Amino acid sequence: MKVRVGVNGYGTIGKRVAWAVTLQPDMELVGIVKTKPNWETLSAVKRGLRIYTLKENMREFHARGIEIHGTIEDLLNSVDVMVDATPGDVGATYKKLYESFSRKAVFQGGEEPEVAEVSFNALVNYGEALGKNYVRVVSCNTTGLLRIIHAISRLGRIKRVRGFIARRAADLKEIKKGPIEGIILDPSKPPSHHALDVNTVIKDLDIITYAVVVPTTLAHVHTLQFMLERAVSHDEVLDALANTPRILLVDGGLLKSTAELRELARDLGRPQGDIYENVVWSDSVLVRGDEVMLTYAVHQEAIVVPENIDAIRAITRLKERAEDSIKITDETLGIKRWL
Amino acid sequence: MKVRVGVNGYGTIGKRVAWAVTLQPDMELVGIVKTKPNWETLSAVKRGLRIYTLKENMREFHARGIEIHGTIEDLLNSVDVMVDATPGDVGATYKKLYESFSRKAVFQGGEEPEVAEVSFNALVNYGEALGKNYVRVVSCNTTGLLRIIHAISRLGRIKRVRGFIARRAADLKEIKKGPIEGIILDPSKPPSHHALDVNTVIKDLDIITYAVVVPTTLAHVHTLQFMLERAVSHDEVLDALANTPRILLVDGGLLKSTAELRELARDLGRPQGDIYENVVWSDSVLVRGDEVMLTYAVHQEAIVVPENIDAIRAITRLKERAEDSIKITDETLGIKRWL
Repeated sequence: MKVRVGVNGYGTIGKRVAWAVTLQPDMELVGIVKTKPNWETLSAVKRGLRIYTLKENMREFHARGIEIHGTIEDLLNSVDVMVDATPGDVGATYKKLYESFSRKAVFQGGEEPEVAEVSFNALVNYGEALGKNYVRVVSCNTTGLLRIIHAISRLGRIKRVRGFIARRAADLKEIKKGPIEGIILDPSKPPSHHALDVNTVIKDLDIITYAVVVPTTLAHVHTLQFMLERAVSHDEVLDALANTPRILLVDGGLLKSTAELRELARDLGRPQGDIYENVVWSDSVLVRGDEVMLTYAVHQEAIVVPENIDAIRAITRLKERAEDSIKITDETLGIKRWL
Repeated sequence: MKVRVGVNGYGTIGKRVAWAVTLQPDMELVGIVKTKPNWETLSAVKRGLRIYTLKENMREFHARGIEIHGTIEDLLNSVDVMVDATPGDVGATYKKLYESFSRKAVFQGGEEPEVAEVSFNALVNYGEALGKNYVRVVSCNTTGLLRIIHAISRLGRIKRVRGFIARRAADLKEIKKGPIEGIILDPSKPPSHHALDVNTVIKDLDIITYAVVVPTTLAHVHTLQFMLERAVSHDEVLDALANTPRILLVDGGLLKSTAELRELARDLGRPQGDIYENVVWSDSVLVRGDEVMLTYAVHQEAIVVPENIDAIRAITRLKERAEDSIKITDETLGIKRWL
C-alpha cells in the first residue's frame, strides 16, 4: 500500500516536492493545495494534478475555469501525510488544522524549529524522525551545511566549523525581491541563522557562520573550514565526500561558476535545471593537518526536495533505515547520476 | 620644494591619484598621460589638467579639439616621479622608458611584483620603500587585507589568517565586464592570488584566501579569521581597529550593505562617493580566545589612492616615517573624518 501524500503550497518547494512524490514507487500524490489561481496553478493543471483550495477561494478558481477537487479539508481526509510548503511562518498557522485531522506533516525550514518534534536531515538524523507526527526539513543552506558536516564527520570528531555563505538574493520567479546591486551582510553580527539552524539538528557542534546576500538567482556558495581532532589526508577527505550520498564533486578546471553548473544541469535534462546535490569543487579542497577547507554550491530551489521525500518515509516508517530511503529517492530523482 | 608628479593613465586609479596629488601640500601634479581622447579625457580637460600623450596619438587628440601639452617623454622630463596607472601588465612595458629618463615610478597591483623593488602598503612597510626607485602599490583587495592584518598584528603574533573574499565583478564604467548573474570561483583552487600578494609584503605570514566574483560594482566584502598566539578580548580588537589609520568602524544596526555605505559616502560629499578606508562592521567582530573573525568592505576604486600618495613620499623621502606621510594624506583626503 502506498503512502498518500498531499502538498499544501505549490510554490518553489511545493511544486518540486509534488513532482518528486509522483516518482516514488511507495507514494501517491493525492493532490495539492493552492490558494490563488496564478500561473503556477496553470502548470499544475497541465501536469494533471488534482487541485484543492480553501473553501472561500473556490469561486476565484472557477472564474478562471480551473477545476477544483475540493477543499483543503477534503484533501486532509484523503492523505496520510501533508507536506507543508506554504511560505515561511505560514505553515505554523496550518498546524492546528493538520492536528485536528490527525495527519502527520512535513514542514519546511522557513518555520520555527518549534513547529515540529524534530528538525530533519536525511543523512544526519533520519532515525530521530521515525514515526514522528511533525518534522521540519531544514532550509536549503542548512541542508547543504549538514550534508558536508556529515561527510567530514566520518573522518573523526569535528572540533569546530567556520563558514562563509554567499546567498543568492532571490529565486528567478521572485520579481519583487532584491537586491540587484550590492552585497548585504545577512546579518552583520555573527552567527548567521544557518549555524543556529545546524544546531537544531546537531546540538553540540561548535559552528559559526557569516553570510552575505549577493545579486544572483542561481545558487548559494559556501566555503567552510573544519578543525578536526586528528590530522587527515587530502585523499581521505575526497573519498569521504565522494562516498557520501547527495554530494557531487566537480573539477574547477571543467567549470567554476554557479552559472555554468546550472546550465550544465539544464543541458543534461535535469528538470528545470535542478541540482539536488551539494556540488563540491574538488580542487577547492585544502587539507593542512587537522584543518580542512572546501567550497561548494547549493541550488536553493532543489536541494531540500530529496530530504522532503525521505522525511515522508521516516515519519510513516515506510523505511526504517536512512540508507534504504535515500537509495530509492536518489534513484528516482537521478541523483549523482547526471554528471 | 614640491615633488613633481606625473600620472600615466587616467582610468579608475589614475584619475583619482591625479586628483589626490593636487591636494597634497608637498606635491605638484605636472600632468597626466592619456593614450585616447575618450570621455575621461574630457573630464581631465574640464578639471584643467595638462594632458600628454604618445607622439603617434597627438593627431587624434587634436582632431577632437583637445589641447596636448606634449609627449610622455616631455612629461618625464618635467617630473620627479611617475605614477603608472596603466592597465594591468602594461605598466611593465613602460618601465624601460621610465628608467631611460632616470625617473622613479609607482606601479599598481595589476603588475607582477617583479616590476618593482618592493610591494608596498603604507601601514606595513613604508620604511622598505624609502628612497627606492620602483615600488608597487598592491591591489585593492590586498591593500584591504594588509591594513586589517596590520591592525590585528598590534595585539600579538598572528599564527594564521584565513579569508573569504566576495569580489565585485566590475567597476561601474566597465560596461563589457561580467558576470551579471552567477557566482564565479576565482579561482576554485585556493589560495586566491590575494594571499600570495599579501605574502609579497609580509613574507612569512600563514595566509589562505578563497575568493568568488559576484555581480556587483560597488565594493568587495571580506570575512577574515585570525588565529593569534594569545587570547585577546573583544575590546582589545575593537580598539586596535579603531586606532589604526584608514580603518573605519560602522555598526550593522546603522547600515549593513555596500549599497547603503556607498550611498552614505555620496550623501556626505565624498568625491564620486569614494571610500578610502576599510569599513569594518563593528558588530561583525567575533572573539573566541585566540580566534578573531570580522567582516569589512573595500571600495575597489578608491582604497589604493592614499597608498599611492604615501608611496610617492616614501620613494622621494619627502617623509621618513610612515605616520608623518599618512597624517598629511589622510587630512587632505578627509580620511576617517566623514562619518
